[in-house]
Amino acid sequence: MGRKNSAVVLSHPLHISPAMPMHTLSDCLARDAADPLCGLRDHFSLPEGLIYLDGNSLGPLPRAAAARAAQVVQQEWGHGLIRSWNDAGWFAMPQRVGGRIAPLIGAQPHEVVVTDSTSVNLFKVLSAALAIAAADSPGRTMVLSERHNFPTDLYIAQSVCHTHGCALEMVEPDAIAASLHAKVAVLLLTHVNYRTGAMHDMAAITAAAHAAGALVVWDLAHSTGAVPVDLHGASADFAVGCGYKFLNGGPGAPAFVWAHTRHASRADLPWMQPLTGWFGHAAPFAFTPDYHSAPGMARFLCGTPPVISLAVLDAALDVFDAVQAVGGMAALREKSLALGDLFMELVEQQCTGLGLGIATPRQHGRRGSQVSLTHHDSSEPHSAYAIVQALIARGVIGDFRAGGVGEPDILRFGITPLYLGYADVWHAVERLKQVLGSSEWREARFARKAAVT
Amino acid sequence: MGRKNSAVVLSHPLHISPAMPMHTLSDCLARDAADPLCGLRDHFSLPEGLIYLDGNSLGPLPRAAAARAAQVVQQEWGHGLIRSWNDAGWFAMPQRVGGRIAPLIGAQPHEVVVTDSTSVNLFKVLSAALAIAAADSPGRTMVLSERHNFPTDLYIAQSVCHTHGCALEMVEPDAIAASLHAKVAVLLLTHVNYRTGAMHDMAAITAAAHAAGALVVWDLAHSTGAVPVDLHGASADFAVGCGYKFLNGGPGAPAFVWAHTRHASRADLPWMQPLTGWFGHAAPFAFTPDYHSAPGMARFLCGTPPVISLAVLDAALDVFDAVQAVGGMAALREKSLALGDLFMELVEQQCTGLGLGIATPRQHGRRGSQVSLTHHDSSEPHSAYAIVQALIARGVIGDFRAGGVGEPDILRFGITPLYLGYADVWHAVERLKQVLGSSEWREARFARKAAVT
Repeated sequence: MGRKNSAVVLSHPLHISPAMPMHTLSDCLARDAADPLCGLRDHFSLPEGLIYLDGNSLGPLPRAAAARAAQVVQQEWGHGLIRSWNDAGWFAMPQRVGGRIAPLIGAQPHEVVVTDSTSVNLFKVLSAALAIAAADSPGRTMVLSERHNFPTDLYIAQSVCHTHGCALEMVEPDAIAASLHAKVAVLLLTHVNYRTGAMHDMAAITAAAHAAGALVVWDLAHSTGAVPVDLHGASADFAVGCGYKFLNGGPGAPAFVWAHTRHASRADLPWMQPLTGWFGHAAPFAFTPDYHSAPGMARFLCGTPPVISLAVLDAALDVFDAVQAVGGMAALREKSLALGDLFMELVEQQCTGLGLGIATPRQHGRRGSQVSLTHHDSSEPHSAYAIVQALIARGVIGDFRAGGVGEPDILRFGITPLYLGYADVWHAVERLKQVLGSSEWREARFARKAAVT
Repeated sequence: MGRKNSAVVLSHPLHISPAMPMHTLSDCLARDAADPLCGLRDHFSLPEGLIYLDGNSLGPLPRAAAARAAQVVQQEWGHGLIRSWNDAGWFAMPQRVGGRIAPLIGAQPHEVVVTDSTSVNLFKVLSAALAIAAADSPGRTMVLSERHNFPTDLYIAQSVCHTHGCALEMVEPDAIAASLHAKVAVLLLTHVNYRTGAMHDMAAITAAAHAAGALVVWDLAHSTGAVPVDLHGASADFAVGCGYKFLNGGPGAPAFVWAHTRHASRADLPWMQPLTGWFGHAAPFAFTPDYHSAPGMARFLCGTPPVISLAVLDAALDVFDAVQAVGGMAALREKSLALGDLFMELVEQQCTGLGLGIATPRQHGRRGSQVSLTHHDSSEPHSAYAIVQALIARGVIGDFRAGGVGEPDILRFGITPLYLGYADVWHAVERLKQVLGSSEWREARFARKAAVT
């Protein structure tokens, strides 16, 4: 692994500290029994016996979502038909569901709308940010991002830069602060890295960017629902996030978009959000030929919203109401960190000498809600992939992410305290040890493409 | 009604021709009994006793779609979890479902993908068309469209023109041919008008535009599934269309997009489709930082596809397989025209003297699959709205579209031969006559916003 990438995927060698507690299954079972959050698992429909460590890619099915899907299809669509746009509140769903996500990200309810995909929403806010920069700070012609950002963010940024005559500069994460020069219009970052789980300090980086005269766009795909986020606390400018990861909204669930009111309310830049579909119009049913953007966040809507998917995501959010009753996002975060600590300590306790390394930062303030491992085997360059397959065969679902140039492959394990317990982590690492200690991973040759992040 | 708009909404006065057959309910019942398409209705779950004439706004629930929704949620998501991206074929759904729409629009299966909304897809193809025009025909800086096009098309066109430094020219439909001057880069039209149901001659207009050096983008929202469309026969350039109208894909179903291979295959314009999300990348799971567009239609994909909605639309398309067995789109069109003729003739037979006019062209070649009426009452300027409400209260669902400046309001009735019969039309007009002949429409004051087109 080259020096250049070391700030991103520093795969720590395993190390058993004398101070580290030795974990046993009975300890883990005792912690589960004492866990005030353990009842949240009942909100989910999970296959019996499966340990699901991929909720950072696709959250599992909430029971309420299954019921809601049947209701929206059979009752609202089937029986209500076109009348349900009013009678079932379909028109207001992008705002209403957005309002339920708002408290998870430190936003006001009227500031979040749910619509389209994360990539499309990123196109909207990045275009808006560059339009604002062009109006307020002419001469700033760069978008700054992280080389290891999730690729779709970089692809969208490249396109938006192409359109605006700007350039995208991609740097290592430890070079971000030093790269906030006078040409930077927008800093585009993902809060929690999809591969390593490393988390940026949103408040500090936003403050540094603002001090340097740049706007900040945050992608919250891997943090919303897993990590407390405070957009207003950081005075961030724009944010987007994903509905199908830690929010459990179902495959391809619509995404959300947030803009600070100082931007959303700007009337002097009518085209700042270029996807000017009718749902973003000030009066969509006046059917006038000229576009006039709605005030506030509605201007970030475009076409007809995906009603069935919105209803499913809406129901999936019920579990976060239940979270409020057991300590809220702070309690969820506390358990997430405890599960992550346990995972990493168990890997060190059980798997030392088996070729593993830990790619996720150990410090609580520097990581999200996943544990990423590396594996080195001189005879098998694709060992990480094979190990993930062998683990799936043993009922532990994580996923594989290929390394970039000079970077190791990743075994990725999502930590979702909504439905995972301490004993689940114990069993997962135990099975990982069994896979590594036998030849079965070398035989895991059945093809499976990488899963969707 | 002013001369300027007369080409758009020419509300014909009712006229009983001596040659016109007098229709009776028993005739209509006999036609239903002899109708080879009448069994198609069994594919739908429709409320008992309701006559649904709004399938041009939101198609009703196909039985197969309800079953598929439960399957994709409970089995594929709930049990399969992340594995379903491969095991249930989720990755290939945009292409696979697109391939099923292709024969309805005269396209090859690999030329259609389903993703995002109609508005977002229109942004993609219009951006691509202008990028192609800029490369091939510099100096062409106009987009030409119809003033009465569906507003979201005009809004998107205004934004794309703003970005590209072009101008949008909106003309009356009868002025299109004469407006194809040397500055026109792209002609953007909706095949069937959402208000009047008037249909353009796709082949003739496309040929005229090409002869004038312009590309043509067709919005097929109100034709796909109702009117045979032949994009290759017309040698069209780009098309988009809606999943939730005549395709019955459910509220907010994803839309489709088509590009002629001569455009989709262009490698010299990597940014022509600006929504460059990871699903449009040549190798989405290589996770490389630089965008390289996929070859062919995959470059029109953007973010993670909406799996649940795609599955529902996929199942909804099953009915078109059944249509193949009873004569295909030609038979569907024949029945659509027969139902539309019957509707208009019954209005003339039953409702003369009650203030109605017919806004839909009578000629078969000039109309889609709806009947639009006007109503004039000197004492009630919003009579059309009230009449639609009173009809809904009597179990006949059509919808209302407010007129633009100088245009009359519209009572809009979608004709969908998949589940409508001749007796349905008879009863609908009979109830319309009853509503108009009584005071009940004047009392229909309960609020209901216009439905989504």
